[in-house]
Amino acid sequence: MKTLWTKRYAQRTRRMQSSAVRELLKLTEQPDVISFAGGLPAPKVFPVKEFQEACQKVLNEHGPKALQYSTTEGYRPLREMIARHTARYGIVVDADHILITSGSQQALDLIGKIFINPGDHVLVEKPTYLGALQAWNAYQVEYVAVGLDDDGMKTDELEGALRSGPKFLYALPNFHNPAGVTLALARRQKLIVLADHYGVPVIEDDPYGQLRYEGEHLPSLVVLDNHYQAHNGAPYSGNVIYLSTFSKTLAPGLRLGWVIAPKEIIQKLVQAKQGADLHTSTFNQMVAYEVARGGFLDKHVRYIREVYHERRDAMFHALERYFPEEVRWTHPQGGLFLWVVLPEHLDAAQVLQEAVKERVAFVPGTAFYPDGAGQNTLRLNFSNATPEKIEEGIKRLGRVLKSILSPATLSQAGADSGFR
Amino acid sequence: MKTLWTKRYAQRTRRMQSSAVRELLKLTEQPDVISFAGGLPAPKVFPVKEFQEACQKVLNEHGPKALQYSTTEGYRPLREMIARHTARYGIVVDADHILITSGSQQALDLIGKIFINPGDHVLVEKPTYLGALQAWNAYQVEYVAVGLDDDGMKTDELEGALRSGPKFLYALPNFHNPAGVTLALARRQKLIVLADHYGVPVIEDDPYGQLRYEGEHLPSLVVLDNHYQAHNGAPYSGNVIYLSTFSKTLAPGLRLGWVIAPKEIIQKLVQAKQGADLHTSTFNQMVAYEVARGGFLDKHVRYIREVYHERRDAMFHALERYFPEEVRWTHPQGGLFLWVVLPEHLDAAQVLQEAVKERVAFVPGTAFYPDGAGQNTLRLNFSNATPEKIEEGIKRLGRVLKSILSPATLSQAGADSGFR
Repeated sequence: MKTLWTKRYAQRTRRMQSSAVRELLKLTEQPDVISFAGGLPAPKVFPVKEFQEACQKVLNEHGPKALQYSTTEGYRPLREMIARHTARYGIVVDADHILITSGSQQALDLIGKIFINPGDHVLVEKPTYLGALQAWNAYQVEYVAVGLDDDGMKTDELEGALRSGPKFLYALPNFHNPAGVTLALARRQKLIVLADHYGVPVIEDDPYGQLRYEGEHLPSLVVLDNHYQAHNGAPYSGNVIYLSTFSKTLAPGLRLGWVIAPKEIIQKLVQAKQGADLHTSTFNQMVAYEVARGGFLDKHVRYIREVYHERRDAMFHALERYFPEEVRWTHPQGGLFLWVVLPEHLDAAQVLQEAVKERVAFVPGTAFYPDGAGQNTLRLNFSNATPEKIEEGIKRLGRVLKSILSPATLSQAGADSGFR
Repeated sequence: MKTLWTKRYAQRTRRMQSSAVRELLKLTEQPDVISFAGGLPAPKVFPVKEFQEACQKVLNEHGPKALQYSTTEGYRPLREMIARHTARYGIVVDADHILITSGSQQALDLIGKIFINPGDHVLVEKPTYLGALQAWNAYQVEYVAVGLDDDGMKTDELEGALRSGPKFLYALPNFHNPAGVTLALARRQKLIVLADHYGVPVIEDDPYGQLRYEGEHLPSLVVLDNHYQAHNGAPYSGNVIYLSTFSKTLAPGLRLGWVIAPKEIIQKLVQAKQGADLHTSTFNQMVAYEVARGGFLDKHVRYIREVYHERRDAMFHALERYFPEEVRWTHPQGGLFLWVVLPEHLDAAQVLQEAVKERVAFVPGTAFYPDGAGQNTLRLNFSNATPEKIEEGIKRLGRVLKSILSPATLSQAGADSGFR
């Protein structure tokens, strides 16, 4: 339909596309499709009863406040709770360093809004979080990208990328989405030293940090930078902006995330957020606070870890059993995803077409590359399906891959991908 | 605190400021201040009991779905309900013409994102809605503005403004925020004819349309444009994008608004929203649907009208009784606000300083002018305070104004303001 709006779109819309992941979510809603495509938490871990009790309590005790407009910064008791929680991991800040956002996605958008001029470069991993690319493409950003291997960002490639003068560096150190890998401690330290040397600030995106199923917690980039900058005497150096969310520990349907940043930046983000949505739902903030307080969140995260640990292991076992030898995958210690590298001549988008016929789905990896590379990669989610469905889905996908891979292709394995 | 982020802000942040209204909300939270500053609904009209029941029902019957990620477009039953409701006012669309936004504020942001290039002009009323200025300033927009009088936008000034080639025209036809005036029918028709003639599409922002306390409902710009374009045969011409919200009829703390637009534009808005916050809270959409369905919303809106009608009249009476003769104000037939014009030599910001000492607050009008004019104007909200508080607050404000206005100033009344 032609209207007076036709041909009036802003130039930035040329870079805006509907996310392949989001569109796939619709395709794979049919109940007979086993989908490893989304990043959905398991419905069984949602604390529905606790939400019911919290809704009653909030509406009984603070009904008019919960339904009213509130401040842009967010509900103060919730911000104070986040500050207390975060202090346990060495990030010592107060509530004024914290802004509540409408999901972590909004934090990425607001950061783009206050920092990115058209043509600015941002340093990202390749692959990287699709939502960050989506948020920042709208600000006409350019990317400089550094590869990943099993120990996370290849910091030996970092110096060249930093030298090109990016506006900031964006990293997902824990259980990377999509790659599933974790940035090794020595690399974390090297990243901080190099970023400081080149004067490039850092965004640390940590939605999954609490969901570790094996191995030891590694200090966050915020903590390492604070140690490195210890001469400034403040508990928070401010060079690293930290993002996290309740989407993976309570419920994504609430749309509650947060930013930890220097107060000056929080103020700018608040101005941007006023123009973007005034504030995040008062009711949801108060309900999340009621659900999470009093130790419930810690207990609940332990339960989620158990459930996802089992599902991850189910996927590991199924991959070993059903996938062809020439396919490689990462071995995440936590999070929701693992990353599959196919032989180089395969196109994961074409594999998906065959897979959907077999009623199994995943996300082709190219969506996660700022430069459209990664055609032979794909992302698998292991949090949403039951172990039984995982076994069956990977079996189906293995069958699809085996039928595509003729004996003639066996010599072209994905061994050069950097992932074991 | 100096960090690596310092001096890295994008150019667009120069135009971003914290809203005077939002900052005032904090100042006036002390319980002894009678605030006419915010745009807050009356807490007593929030249907707390209905929300409790709806939360229980949604969590009992659809708990996992309500807490999970969902599609960017919004909860389909809610969009269908909005389509049915809107059809009663002659806006005949289906759910695919509707996008649920995180408050109407987000609709303004997303519209800026997909339509405004830096330096583009947007045609607005002066004064206009502060939230629109905040949203679009971030996209480095320029404004061309047309004045208001008691019949709304002065359409005899419109042609010159349209000739300058604005990207779109933004209007609040019903119970204007901040001015309280309503665009007369003949002017609505003239606006549509002129916008069509100059090929300029229209944003119709209608948060208060249902809150009419006297007079007859006037057809929306969408409906008038459809009639004018009737030759195209479609029930929705698409030249007018329509915005509304549940903030004034259910509860602002939910952050639920909507856009009605051609499907092609909805798709672009969906792409922009994916990058901005993925989707609006699933839970809140389902709860709002449960509260609003089955005729409750209509009944509830009738109740809100009664409450606000009484409060508006209380403010009218108090203004007549306590305000000095040389002050003028508008006589809104609905909505939440009225507009006060002081003698021209007075500065409302200075009046506010005195007023706060007397424990009464309002918003100085200059915040609502894209060009910083309107120093002698101010906005009063009549929905949030009880009739008794309104009487007392206007009495205090009248005392402040009388003490500022010396007899020497009596000849300089605000008669040239365009408002009776």
